Amino acid sequence: MMKMFNDDSLTLHTDLYQINMVESYWRDDIHQKKAVFELFFRRLPFGSGYAVFAGLERIIDYIQNFRFTEEDLAYLREELNYKEDFIRYLENLRFTGTIRSMKEGELVFGNEPILRVEAPLGEAQLIETALLNIVNYQTLIATKASRIKQIIGNESALEFGTRRAHEMDAAIWGTRAAYIAGFDGTSNVRAGKIFGIPVSGTHAHAFVQTYRDEYVAFCKYASTHKDCVFLVDTYDTLRSGVPNAIRVAKEFGDKINFIGIRLDSGDLAYLSKKARKMLDDAGFHNAKIIASSDLDEHTIVNLKAEGAKIDVWGIGTKLITAYDQPALGAVYKLVAIEGDDGKLVDTIKISSNPEKVTTPGLKNVYRIINNKDKRAEGDYITLHFEQPQKEKRLKMFHPVHTFIKKYVTDFTAKDLHHDIFVDGELTYECPSLEEIRSYVKENLELLWDEYKRILNPAEYPVDLSELCWENKMRNIEEVKQKVKNMDY
Amino acid sequence: MMKMFNDDSLTLHTDLYQINMVESYWRDDIHQKKAVFELFFRRLPFGSGYAVFAGLERIIDYIQNFRFTEEDLAYLREELNYKEDFIRYLENLRFTGTIRSMKEGELVFGNEPILRVEAPLGEAQLIETALLNIVNYQTLIATKASRIKQIIGNESALEFGTRRAHEMDAAIWGTRAAYIAGFDGTSNVRAGKIFGIPVSGTHAHAFVQTYRDEYVAFCKYASTHKDCVFLVDTYDTLRSGVPNAIRVAKEFGDKINFIGIRLDSGDLAYLSKKARKMLDDAGFHNAKIIASSDLDEHTIVNLKAEGAKIDVWGIGTKLITAYDQPALGAVYKLVAIEGDDGKLVDTIKISSNPEKVTTPGLKNVYRIINNKDKRAEGDYITLHFEQPQKEKRLKMFHPVHTFIKKYVTDFTAKDLHHDIFVDGELTYECPSLEEIRSYVKENLELLWDEYKRILNPAEYPVDLSELCWENKMRNIEEVKQKVKNMDY
Repeated sequence: MMKMFNDDSLTLHTDLYQINMVESYWRDDIHQKKAVFELFFRRLPFGSGYAVFAGLERIIDYIQNFRFTEEDLAYLREELNYKEDFIRYLENLRFTGTIRSMKEGELVFGNEPILRVEAPLGEAQLIETALLNIVNYQTLIATKASRIKQIIGNESALEFGTRRAHEMDAAIWGTRAAYIAGFDGTSNVRAGKIFGIPVSGTHAHAFVQTYRDEYVAFCKYASTHKDCVFLVDTYDTLRSGVPNAIRVAKEFGDKINFIGIRLDSGDLAYLSKKARKMLDDAGFHNAKIIASSDLDEHTIVNLKAEGAKIDVWGIGTKLITAYDQPALGAVYKLVAIEGDDGKLVDTIKISSNPEKVTTPGLKNVYRIINNKDKRAEGDYITLHFEQPQKEKRLKMFHPVHTFIKKYVTDFTAKDLHHDIFVDGELTYECPSLEEIRSYVKENLELLWDEYKRILNPAEYPVDLSELCWENKMRNIEEVKQKVKNMDY
Repeated sequence: MMKMFNDDSLTLHTDLYQINMVESYWRDDIHQKKAVFELFFRRLPFGSGYAVFAGLERIIDYIQNFRFTEEDLAYLREELNYKEDFIRYLENLRFTGTIRSMKEGELVFGNEPILRVEAPLGEAQLIETALLNIVNYQTLIATKASRIKQIIGNESALEFGTRRAHEMDAAIWGTRAAYIAGFDGTSNVRAGKIFGIPVSGTHAHAFVQTYRDEYVAFCKYASTHKDCVFLVDTYDTLRSGVPNAIRVAKEFGDKINFIGIRLDSGDLAYLSKKARKMLDDAGFHNAKIIASSDLDEHTIVNLKAEGAKIDVWGIGTKLITAYDQPALGAVYKLVAIEGDDGKLVDTIKISSNPEKVTTPGLKNVYRIINNKDKRAEGDYITLHFEQPQKEKRLKMFHPVHTFIKKYVTDFTAKDLHHDIFVDGELTYECPSLEEIRSYVKENLELLWDEYKRILNPAEYPVDLSELCWENKMRNIEEVKQKVKNMDY
């Protein structure tokens, strides 16, 4: 049986190796050395042309509550046998570092630092796992939702996936991510309460089964609720469900607000067209058709191509589980560490897989926006001291195929990072969800459509500055000199 | 910014339509009618021959804490505009029903009721979403883990996926599900604390990068920890990592317990064989090779076919996200409702998709075990009053292809359902995780290997009793008579 702890904290929500590393650092007395980690993913999910960053609010909450509780410490001491001196260090640990991050709702691409942690080595290390756990999921769902929204356009999209989400947190934070990305509401009442997301829903098949008679069931619902959406597929959509819905809507007249019907199974293209005609013929031109049934951007694009008459899209499983790619591979890599002289020294991780070689040094990300057409030319990653906003002419080149290059003039370089925590103090005020939604929309307008289509989008340029690229090559060279006969 | 509630409860963790339906039931004064819902999935995930049920302990906790808090009620009243009389009903609502369920660790197949709720209609309806959210995820992960364990055999399997899990609950409950199914430990320290699961982990690439010199880093780790596993792929596995690990192991001798090395990237088959030889040549025959890098049952079976020398398998993303099928489609369907005469009446949901037609009535599931070879002949679903354990000879026939049938004699019929709550009182004592692990093992021994292989397993028979089948046909017929011209 699980133990329930009154002071359960998320501070132990980390991998054991983090604690073991920190123990070594602490015993070696280097735990206070300043370390810089950057969080990024390498490849966009779903074959998407962009991703939507989400997770910062949850990270802020986690960092603010970062402290080992008495029960956490008791577990480490008694079950995992950490020694008392190290336990006492952990007991007093708080996050005292600086975090710079993109804002939630920022569009983000592969290999650019979403978030940078500059903190005493011990602290920076311990928070890795939770940060990745949060960003990997929330960003994945915001991205999936944004793709679906691209196809849905101005029609309504509702998040209906709680029952298929990966346990409870995923349901709650996933629906928030979907809302950020442009969804209009959720079925999850707790998400409504916590985040103020509009909630929606009327009745299920069980309601019709309870009354055993569909017409009676619809009447009962209409007698007890003003706003009515009738679920029409419990027995037979076109022969029973839609006719009963129309009959009840007529009988109740303006005693109810007949919003429409919901289709939850069967051939949605065929059924929606037939149902639309039946509703129209009955004079219910404004009645909406709400559809749900394993929908995602790919099924929706096909339903639209077939001329399906669907006004509101209920999206469940495929969104909340990111069904076609249920993991974003975000990682958290050390890019610099304080040397013996107190100055930061860049670090690199080499891999036989070239795309896994890290880019050393503290970096900034600038979105280069063409002043003429107000569209993004690409993102430009610099070492932290560079100031591309002061350049007249920017050379942008592909970090792998370096011969692909262009020069940009008359541009605005927008720094995508913001101070979140400075020396342990929260300096950032979280925007409202409505503000984040607007921010996503604004950001998408900066992007050419070619980057936004759901299938085979063009590759958005994410380039390194020359200094940043040269610094990386120099670091690779240094490792090669240390390790003889490397494959580099 | 999210609102934090001191009395946040999971009772609002439901779909809005549940509350709307309950409002109708309450206003119609049928909320106290006895309703029976069954929870089941239709198809096994991953092309698996069986699934492993997990989630019951979390459900018990949820049900025991099922009550709307003041803030829940305030939200429903003030934001969603439910009327005060209905709010007062919700305020006093507790779960007073009966739940019968399979035990955690039970092997379960498609279309058999895992769990049955008999409760006043309002209560039974409100808990649907949370129950599905819990069972869908935990059962999915237990099943995936069991498949991986089938391939790994007696070697060790560790769950390493927290950073890629779908938010925090998934990490915690997913690793518990993996442990139930035979995994040996996790990297997640909080899961260790809460569930008592063994935790493991040593150091990451950042540790080597921090010291910038791999040999120095390994020495530092060895100076501060007795048990040492060195991660050898920060720079170059065979030219740097393994030689440095061997050097440090030799130099420290019995001052450390050199458990082995960890490979986290590259060609694991090639690298493990080379590393094994290097370790053996250095006299470290007992040093283990731990591998991780997007592993699942399919990559592992291929690595083994190639003769990879891996002793411990660290499984992350592919397990914790159930990567190749991230959703189990469990549903919760009304099978009977109290009629006007106080007696239960069976209910059915019809669908144009035949596999979505529900099986009416309260049902039991019996595992039919052949007394001679102690293997399962299949599962036998009966109406609740049938007593197959008293039959001498059982006719088992395929519920779709009814001509496929067999007669079984000399069998034991094991009732898979147990009382969990009776009239709102918890009557079940949760077994320990160790007991659940043993139970999974025992259950797997009842199954022929043909059902357990990971690719194209044989189909395990899940049959309906004749009474149950006839009852279903009768219910379909009744609906057909009501709805003219149905496609049935």
